[in-house]
Amino acid sequence: MAKKKLNVGLIGYGFMGRTHSNAYRKVGNFFDLDYEVVTKAVCARNEERLKSFADQWGYESTETDWRKLVERDDIDLIDIGSPNDTHQEIAIAAAEAGKMILCEKPLARTGEEAKPMVDAVEKAGVPNMVWYNYRRVPAVTLAKQLIDEGRLGKIFHYRSKFLQDWTISEDLPQGGEGLWRLDVNVAGSGVTGDLLAHNIDTAIWLNGSIDSVSALTETFIKERQHSLTGKVEKVGIDDACIFMAEFKNGSLGNFESTRYARGHKALYDFEINGEKASIAWDLHDMNRLAYFDHGDDSIVRGWRSIHVTDGDQPYMDKWWVPGLIIGYEHTFIHQVADFLEGVAKGEPASPTFKDALETQYICDAVLKSGKSRAWEKVQKV
Amino acid sequence: MAKKKLNVGLIGYGFMGRTHSNAYRKVGNFFDLDYEVVTKAVCARNEERLKSFADQWGYESTETDWRKLVERDDIDLIDIGSPNDTHQEIAIAAAEAGKMILCEKPLARTGEEAKPMVDAVEKAGVPNMVWYNYRRVPAVTLAKQLIDEGRLGKIFHYRSKFLQDWTISEDLPQGGEGLWRLDVNVAGSGVTGDLLAHNIDTAIWLNGSIDSVSALTETFIKERQHSLTGKVEKVGIDDACIFMAEFKNGSLGNFESTRYARGHKALYDFEINGEKASIAWDLHDMNRLAYFDHGDDSIVRGWRSIHVTDGDQPYMDKWWVPGLIIGYEHTFIHQVADFLEGVAKGEPASPTFKDALETQYICDAVLKSGKSRAWEKVQKV
Amino acid sequence: MAKKKLNVGLIGYGFMGRTHSNAYRKVGNFFDLDYEVVTKAVCARNEERLKSFADQWGYESTETDWRKLVERDDIDLIDIGSPNDTHQEIAIAAAEAGKMILCEKPLARTGEEAKPMVDAVEKAGVPNMVWYNYRRVPAVTLAKQLIDEGRLGKIFHYRSKFLQDWTISEDLPQGGEGLWRLDVNVAGSGVTGDLLAHNIDTAIWLNGSIDSVSALTETFIKERQHSLTGKVEKVGIDDACIFMAEFKNGSLGNFESTRYARGHKALYDFEINGEKASIAWDLHDMNRLAYFDHGDDSIVRGWRSIHVTDGDQPYMDKWWVPGLIIGYEHTFIHQVADFLEGVAKGEPASPTFKDALETQYICDAVLKSGKSRAWEKVQKV
Amino acid sequence: MAKKKLNVGLIGYGFMGRTHSNAYRKVGNFFDLDYEVVTKAVCARNEERLKSFADQWGYESTETDWRKLVERDDIDLIDIGSPNDTHQEIAIAAAEAGKMILCEKPLARTGEEAKPMVDAVEKAGVPNMVWYNYRRVPAVTLAKQLIDEGRLGKIFHYRSKFLQDWTISEDLPQGGEGLWRLDVNVAGSGVTGDLLAHNIDTAIWLNGSIDSVSALTETFIKERQHSLTGKVEKVGIDDACIFMAEFKNGSLGNFESTRYARGHKALYDFEINGEKASIAWDLHDMNRLAYFDHGDDSIVRGWRSIHVTDGDQPYMDKWWVPGLIIGYEHTFIHQVADFLEGVAKGEPASPTFKDALETQYICDAVLKSGKSRAWEKVQKV
Repeated sequence: MAKKKLNVGLIGYGFMGRTHSNAYRKVGNFFDLDYEVVTKAVCARNEERLKSFADQWGYESTETDWRKLVERDDIDLIDIGSPNDTHQEIAIAAAEAGKMILCEKPLARTGEEAKPMVDAVEKAGVPNMVWYNYRRVPAVTLAKQLIDEGRLGKIFHYRSKFLQDWTISEDLPQGGEGLWRLDVNVAGSGVTGDLLAHNIDTAIWLNGSIDSVSALTETFIKERQHSLTGKVEKVGIDDACIFMAEFKNGSLGNFESTRYARGHKALYDFEINGEKASIAWDLHDMNRLAYFDHGDDSIVRGWRSIHVTDGDQPYMDKWWVPGLIIGYEHTFIHQVADFLEGVAKGEPASPTFKDALETQYICDAVLKSGKSRAWEKVQKV
Repeated sequence: MAKKKLNVGLIGYGFMGRTHSNAYRKVGNFFDLDYEVVTKAVCARNEERLKSFADQWGYESTETDWRKLVERDDIDLIDIGSPNDTHQEIAIAAAEAGKMILCEKPLARTGEEAKPMVDAVEKAGVPNMVWYNYRRVPAVTLAKQLIDEGRLGKIFHYRSKFLQDWTISEDLPQGGEGLWRLDVNVAGSGVTGDLLAHNIDTAIWLNGSIDSVSALTETFIKERQHSLTGKVEKVGIDDACIFMAEFKNGSLGNFESTRYARGHKALYDFEINGEKASIAWDLHDMNRLAYFDHGDDSIVRGWRSIHVTDGDQPYMDKWWVPGLIIGYEHTFIHQVADFLEGVAKGEPASPTFKDALETQYICDAVLKSGKSRAWEKVQKV
Repeated sequence: MAKKKLNVGLIGYGFMGRTHSNAYRKVGNFFDLDYEVVTKAVCARNEERLKSFADQWGYESTETDWRKLVERDDIDLIDIGSPNDTHQEIAIAAAEAGKMILCEKPLARTGEEAKPMVDAVEKAGVPNMVWYNYRRVPAVTLAKQLIDEGRLGKIFHYRSKFLQDWTISEDLPQGGEGLWRLDVNVAGSGVTGDLLAHNIDTAIWLNGSIDSVSALTETFIKERQHSLTGKVEKVGIDDACIFMAEFKNGSLGNFESTRYARGHKALYDFEINGEKASIAWDLHDMNRLAYFDHGDDSIVRGWRSIHVTDGDQPYMDKWWVPGLIIGYEHTFIHQVADFLEGVAKGEPASPTFKDALETQYICDAVLKSGKSRAWEKVQKV
Repeated sequence: MAKKKLNVGLIGYGFMGRTHSNAYRKVGNFFDLDYEVVTKAVCARNEERLKSFADQWGYESTETDWRKLVERDDIDLIDIGSPNDTHQEIAIAAAEAGKMILCEKPLARTGEEAKPMVDAVEKAGVPNMVWYNYRRVPAVTLAKQLIDEGRLGKIFHYRSKFLQDWTISEDLPQGGEGLWRLDVNVAGSGVTGDLLAHNIDTAIWLNGSIDSVSALTETFIKERQHSLTGKVEKVGIDDACIFMAEFKNGSLGNFESTRYARGHKALYDFEINGEKASIAWDLHDMNRLAYFDHGDDSIVRGWRSIHVTDGDQPYMDKWWVPGLIIGYEHTFIHQVADFLEGVAKGEPASPTFKDALETQYICDAVLKSGKSRAWEKVQKV
């Protein structure tokens, strides 16, 4: 059966531009889908580098103005991989043009900015999804399955961190290529929007809604040179953020993120304690899931280290043989596969813009609490 | 050289009565001290079991009234191993009787209750110490040494948990022998005083004072039968507690304890992130210290798992040979040894009652914040 | 600069057919090479499945007779991914046709069978390489670098295992698709040629030649139904093999492989103990390298767990950002990249057919020793 | 009930003298036994240090001639803690004097030397035991229990190592105090008798008899100064030893020991692979047992890390509470407790001299094979 072609127009060629492009090019080799993804066009402002990127990844054409891309009839899907401050305008225009939309996380800089994006895609009725890729780590998807099967019972605790150490040096400037994540105007926030947004997305998927939060935020280095102006300017982002959360299901959340945890490159982890079982996972060893089942015979009870590489575990029938691991980039391939299956069936793939809006509101409450030093209610979606 | 005898009178024969007794009996086999500890008398109310305990541990005599013990001329040191609600009265009487005092942790149920104890020992000028035994885990003592040597540089983060899972069952009663830790009137609080007090004691030792805290406390099981009354009564303790802390040195603290973390028996852990290095430790593998040194060559940089069993590491010259571990009980032996060396030199051994009062004030602020749902300042000692 | 096209003709569409195809398709996205790989043709006997495979992986054409493939003028490189008993005939024909050759491991069923293959490629002067992919795990390549830098000093011990558990069931037949590894006529041997060959290839790369070996081989299940004949037939392969080795450099080798180690899917590991440092690695956590440096300060000395995901570690500048891992398949991509760089420079990429012949001779000596129950000298290449 | 006194006479005050003395002094505090151990006398040649040791450990008297100790009527049990070359003579004399005997391992330097010792204790009918203490690590005892319960099913593989790194320096002399283990005349052999004897003792206990072995032995440093003569002399011990073994039950053994494994202090480990389950353990983390149960649901199957500190696990009801570990020395306490229970019941406690003779014969075969470079049969006990 001939596959239907689905033409992608990608905006942005940075780190995320590469992960998305790779996903588009590989998904068909491993998943049997109704759609064949065509890397039709890529858009960015620097023409020379754009050309090189297009060559490297096999994009058929290029654009330097995203509006032109959005207007093109031969584009079915707009993939927004540009910095956070550009998401809203592009997404609304793409929705109005009737395009499917994939948007990098966080959906926007704030919930207020994100809400019209949700409205736009819902009004347009276009398939949409946000690249919270960690839902598609097989071990994380397995965690979801175990919770849905009731294996944990009532949940008491959700604990999650995202620790990095790459901004400890005072000499690192803010702003500019690769460093826009330190510029509050572009990024919207620091670790909260960049890292904790991942923790939160996974948490609400696995453990349901969060009602209220109390946060402690800190900016360790108060001033940094700005790459664009060349001047030393006040740093507006949060370098670190701890927050406590009350989940709707009565469990307690403990979240923390920082870019000042020496020794941790990208240590995203979570642990969930239920009445009957517990689960733990971390990104550095992403193919493993730790699982404690209180139902085991007491003399041989212990945390199991599950090497999630077997064919009966999520997504792993698509890859190699038991014991052989997959990498970070595979999560994006899984997400594209799920999205395309959703499109084929007319069903949304998670997380949708609306799902991501919930994460955004939680981030808003966290940042607000960091300033108010009080518990803050999370706005309902 | 003949050793001076130091006669101990122990109050309480429970779990802690055993750990202390073991320390008294073993310390002389491994440490060369000026003092020889004599297990002179043990005191408790149940005469039959008291006799059996005295036989098992070689106590020369018994008392059923602690006041009599305190009054005895042949007792040099009173060791308070009875429940929290008895500490104050005994300690003050013992101080007034001019006895040295070792007191189980927490010092008292509240800072208010603890303060007169500090005043009493200071007025009496008697050597005093609180059994926060984890300072004497060799790996933890090594952590202190590394920090004092400046190996971590400026500290950004302190993260510590104490997770257990033994009270998840609703059928567990509160109060009575072995279960007084669930009775708020006896214990003063739940995980805060019983477990977080340990985390806090270590934290202020390693990282200095805490200025303010914001806490989330929860009692998952609201009512339990009381062993003494036989009635179902409201549970007054905190089953779980998370708190965020601002240290005086500018670092951020994240603390959590619960007895509802399925899969964790006594998982006390901490991690400290400094500019130049990080440290991590946990009680389940208490002979190991994790250490990350950013100064290592970048291509071979990684967390080191230090097996703290060598003769040049704290306390380990007293024990076996490299690779052979020690256990939980050894921390108490170390503490007795340090105390006796302090007595010989006329120097206090830490943590003194005063040091423990600081922990008490932090616990007070935590519990207060759990109720007020606001940031609370910690009272200064 | 326009890249030169290099047309690949692949023989075999099994597990290895997929890993090689993926490498061809991805290498250009991540490595900047002079050559562009074209997946020109794939060859196998089952026409229907061949067609499906070609579609899925973008092969331009198909062949059902490998001789036709070898004769085609538009093929530059023959990739032999078919079972072991076919390697020799194809390789010699391909060499005679002047093709570059990549051959799956082991090079052949025996050294005797392999030797003419080496002669053929050397006579023809064609670039050649064997798919011992584990040399290109970044952590393993880093191990090589550390050894070459002299960080380990004199080597005393090399210890390596490859443990699996997939053939424990008696009901598993021998022979037939996916199970030809259990048929001695096709495979040549059991774990020795299939698994230990990997251990040996890495060992001689990292630690030099092996002079002599003493082996213990076992076939736990003596008879299995043969898929092709339908009859219960004697099993000719080794289910398990342990061997001791004397390396030329004076170090002692301990090797073991089995498919009866319950709980291990594909646990290939090695540890090397040198005078100054030690190294350990395993495939299940392939992005980590364990490293012990005796030169560290004694009080903080310990095994380091190096997360080999930084840009200054082998190959990792091509992938994502620190902390984000790669998977099994990437080793093949690295190998293609190195091979193509070698072709561009006119330098052989390791392991060549000749390198692989050395491994073959060691396997021969191991299998011979398993039968003779005596130490056996390894034939020199 | 008044306990019966059992008077111990210890020979040797080195490392093992300390571990045994500690066991005698502590056993009564933790185990409820019919016997009360009295540390009656200690014997060694250096009078000054002997006196100091006796004081430190509470021995009532001292002897400088072991023959006098053996002749004393007030001694019930002779504990042989002196170097290997003294075991035979003392043990035979003690047996003839009707004393119970505890002997340090290995029982003797060779099986030939050990056999008369077995004959002597059997003829005298005296309780006897050898200090292979690792059988009494709770995790190891649990392993025995799991195997006896049939949880592993048919055993395929037994793998065990004992790695150290303390003799790498060429400057270390042989012979003399603390270093007699390097003097072949005193020790009998190197790692084989000192370390592998432990591996073997545990192995035959857990997995039954060994029929034949093939070994590779090496002395890396051929000459060392001898402490007693002051001259550089040939080193007679094996620095490293690898051996393969055929167990009577059809499983394959792989054993290795060395004192040249940089980074390992005392890494005694073993792993057992059975049809239904596997077990692994190591001494550095001696309170943990790794367990893989193939019967677990496939999606959550993984190695369990069992923290062996619960009251229903071997010996642990005698100690603290779940999660709190014990140390190396506790294994000796357990062994004394088991021995005394055996004496009370008139049943031998394992390993008896006869059990230890089996280990000795295996060591003999290993050392013989190291020289003959052939498979050697193990002599039957």
